[in-house]
Amino acid sequence: MKPRSEFGRIAGCLLMAAALFIMAAGPVCAEAEMYKGFRKAKYVFLFIGDGMGMPQRSAAEVYLSDEANGGSQKLLAMNQFPAQGVTTTHAANRFITGSAASATAMACGIKTNINFIGVDPELNPVPTIAEVAKEKGMSVGIVSSVSIDHATPAAFYAHQPTRKMYHEIDVDLADSGFDYFGGGGLVDPTGKKSKAPQGDALEIAKRRGYTIITDKTEFMNYDGGKLIAYNNRLPDGQALPYAIDNSALDISLEEFTQKGIDILSKNKKGFFLMVEGGKIDWACHANDAVSAIQDTLAFDNSVKAALDFYKEHPKNTLIIVTGDHECGGMTLGFAGTVYSTQFDVLSKQRLSFQAFTDHIVDKYKKEHAKDGGDFNDIVPMLSYYFGLETQGEGPMVLKDFELAELNKAFRQTMKGDKIKAGTQEYLLYGSYDPLTMKITHILNQKAGIGWTSYSHTGVPITTSAMGVGCEIFNGFYDNTDIPKKIASIMGVEL
Amino acid sequence: MKPRSEFGRIAGCLLMAAALFIMAAGPVCAEAEMYKGFRKAKYVFLFIGDGMGMPQRSAAEVYLSDEANGGSQKLLAMNQFPAQGVTTTHAANRFITGSAASATAMACGIKTNINFIGVDPELNPVPTIAEVAKEKGMSVGIVSSVSIDHATPAAFYAHQPTRKMYHEIDVDLADSGFDYFGGGGLVDPTGKKSKAPQGDALEIAKRRGYTIITDKTEFMNYDGGKLIAYNNRLPDGQALPYAIDNSALDISLEEFTQKGIDILSKNKKGFFLMVEGGKIDWACHANDAVSAIQDTLAFDNSVKAALDFYKEHPKNTLIIVTGDHECGGMTLGFAGTVYSTQFDVLSKQRLSFQAFTDHIVDKYKKEHAKDGGDFNDIVPMLSYYFGLETQGEGPMVLKDFELAELNKAFRQTMKGDKIKAGTQEYLLYGSYDPLTMKITHILNQKAGIGWTSYSHTGVPITTSAMGVGCEIFNGFYDNTDIPKKIASIMGVEL
Repeated sequence: MKPRSEFGRIAGCLLMAAALFIMAAGPVCAEAEMYKGFRKAKYVFLFIGDGMGMPQRSAAEVYLSDEANGGSQKLLAMNQFPAQGVTTTHAANRFITGSAASATAMACGIKTNINFIGVDPELNPVPTIAEVAKEKGMSVGIVSSVSIDHATPAAFYAHQPTRKMYHEIDVDLADSGFDYFGGGGLVDPTGKKSKAPQGDALEIAKRRGYTIITDKTEFMNYDGGKLIAYNNRLPDGQALPYAIDNSALDISLEEFTQKGIDILSKNKKGFFLMVEGGKIDWACHANDAVSAIQDTLAFDNSVKAALDFYKEHPKNTLIIVTGDHECGGMTLGFAGTVYSTQFDVLSKQRLSFQAFTDHIVDKYKKEHAKDGGDFNDIVPMLSYYFGLETQGEGPMVLKDFELAELNKAFRQTMKGDKIKAGTQEYLLYGSYDPLTMKITHILNQKAGIGWTSYSHTGVPITTSAMGVGCEIFNGFYDNTDIPKKIASIMGVEL
Repeated sequence: MKPRSEFGRIAGCLLMAAALFIMAAGPVCAEAEMYKGFRKAKYVFLFIGDGMGMPQRSAAEVYLSDEANGGSQKLLAMNQFPAQGVTTTHAANRFITGSAASATAMACGIKTNINFIGVDPELNPVPTIAEVAKEKGMSVGIVSSVSIDHATPAAFYAHQPTRKMYHEIDVDLADSGFDYFGGGGLVDPTGKKSKAPQGDALEIAKRRGYTIITDKTEFMNYDGGKLIAYNNRLPDGQALPYAIDNSALDISLEEFTQKGIDILSKNKKGFFLMVEGGKIDWACHANDAVSAIQDTLAFDNSVKAALDFYKEHPKNTLIIVTGDHECGGMTLGFAGTVYSTQFDVLSKQRLSFQAFTDHIVDKYKKEHAKDGGDFNDIVPMLSYYFGLETQGEGPMVLKDFELAELNKAFRQTMKGDKIKAGTQEYLLYGSYDPLTMKITHILNQKAGIGWTSYSHTGVPITTSAMGVGCEIFNGFYDNTDIPKKIASIMGVEL
């Protein structure tokens, strides 16, 4: 940003200096007071990268960067935001949090128990920042790359004792009065797994005035009111495909975000839009760095859609980008590569771990259920899908012990036994397909990326903010502070 | 902090609001300009936790916290600082940096190559923020828990093509004109490993007016001028003992810091004091969480000494706490413990990995060089020094596969072969004693702490700031920005 005028620059400096002087000398403004009666955020974006801590953000950035230059370019939009904070994430009843408790913290401003959705530890419903915005006459939208009734999106409109009550959450969605739901589908709209089905949530939604769209062309052309839209192809658990597996026929997270902006910005009273990058987490559970990176980049592209809107409305737009917790214990350094990294090898991977397991491994397993298969059959797949070679020279050639480990994983895959937590096998493969796991682990390690877990971790995550009032997102604070800070800048009570 | 007066509070709010309005409307103050002609930092502390990223800070904090409460208390002084920033660390010629390049970045404000000390990639000497402070008439002190000529402290007073030129660095120290050096000793004062010895650096220092002290009582009573002080007991590489191995007879990092404050604050023109927590890094290289945590807590205690000084001089003191890079790929989550953590098991460890290797394992190896030893001899040591049990029930009882791994490591230890990087054994033990490594790995994993490397990693670290001008340490920036920001608040040119 360049100064608009010399006067403005000097006046700003003097006033800032005076303000700092008076504040440092003793008084500190309460955050809410600082922004009350001053400019308010009318357009509010809350982006939540599920499972996205600093390692995921950093990995995505260095993947984009020219490594010869030390991976120095800061290319992610979110990393360039002026305000950056450190955010603790623990749940009320566990140090390592889960998506439900963390999303409830960020929606309601309270600590709650693992798996609780929009309720406190005593199961009392607590209003969410999205509901408060709606109450105030603003429009509200919820976007996610996983099912739209998954823990993170649900915590903004539902109030249920457990995230697993998908049907009840789906009915809460239909009853929310929110203006837009986009991304993944609904897991249990008709209550097949519910003890007390309440009808078809999608039919209820239609009666409440929602249009339901799953066709991309129809979606792109839509210019109406209340909308529930999900992608036509939902390969796993009603979620969008991993970004790495996406085609132009799929609606991207960025396109769902842009549609949200188009629909919600019609309201002169402003809007609140929550966008979740949900499959970053799923990729990190499976320790698949490439899929996590591609989903983080897709998430950052959605942030850029919000930035474009901000540029048109700089005086009253606020954008927050955060995560709910880190996932996988990802780091940019591995014992086998010592001090070196080689992120460009990651570009050899052509598809997500999930697509490889579902379409390549499972098919092979079925075809060779009787004869047990032959590891040599797998070698061309290692090369084609992941760039891992058994012959020749260079960083992609497998070492003898890596080949032995792959062979062992292959046999484990063909045996097909379920792996239990707490066993030595679980340390190697988690609950995933052993062969796929070993392949992505080895590829990640060749790049210099290590993992410690198939679950979340408890290291604080990074929160970034841009726009009106963003300064109060600097510092070290808890995830429950996030909606309180947003509310203070919006000028509402949470 | 409570408001001192209603007037001050309101005036501060109004001025801050006006400043934010004018600045957000277009102009942005250049950082240096904002603080020029305004209040300046007269007393400057730069604390560098070597190998200390957010995981290390977080691990130390949760270790102190009541886990039943979700480990929620923010007890570390540095995590309570008002300004928190995200800092990238890469070197000019490598993504994962080293201590020399990173310390040169934080001393000189430039990117340089791995192992370079106070020189740019073309080997030209570059002035350091400490030298600039000295030039300006301020006092300067350098404190470290490792040898005072190690890469991090050296980068503030020396200019050499490699950190390995200890003798040349020692002579640079004697010639620096700085007022205080405290902590570890000198690695090569007489030039035993130098191609061109320049005499005894300690004798040169004496001629330059330094007092040399190694006795604790003498140290505690010292109230004079220029001082080089190091602990009497320097168990490895001229470094202080690990904090976990410290006794009251050792001079602690906090005591070295306090003495620095006492000596330097006599100068009415102010001071610059750099304090390194150097053994956090060493403990993390060895994946020893307990030693890393105890050294991080000792480092935080040193920060508290600066905070006490700040409370007496709040208007012109600036305290920065940062790291040079993360080390070990530490995370708070491990595949074997899934979503649970149990940090209290860490309190079972009685000594550092180094003390265990040097005093227990090496002794046993010598005694059993001929007969190869018996793993059963080790069992009582596992119990006494680390709380790991082979009998009974509970989280500390070793699983069969863990016992098998320990047995394998024990045999590797007794064999005594050197382990090369790139091998499968290196992934398990790095270049450390296999048995010690396996023990600390298993104890860490029982707590829920994982590691991915025996080297540094490239994930950005956290920088914290408190005091005059600290606001500009918010945000996302590079380690080369740190001395530039400090210089702008000190009102000097770097």
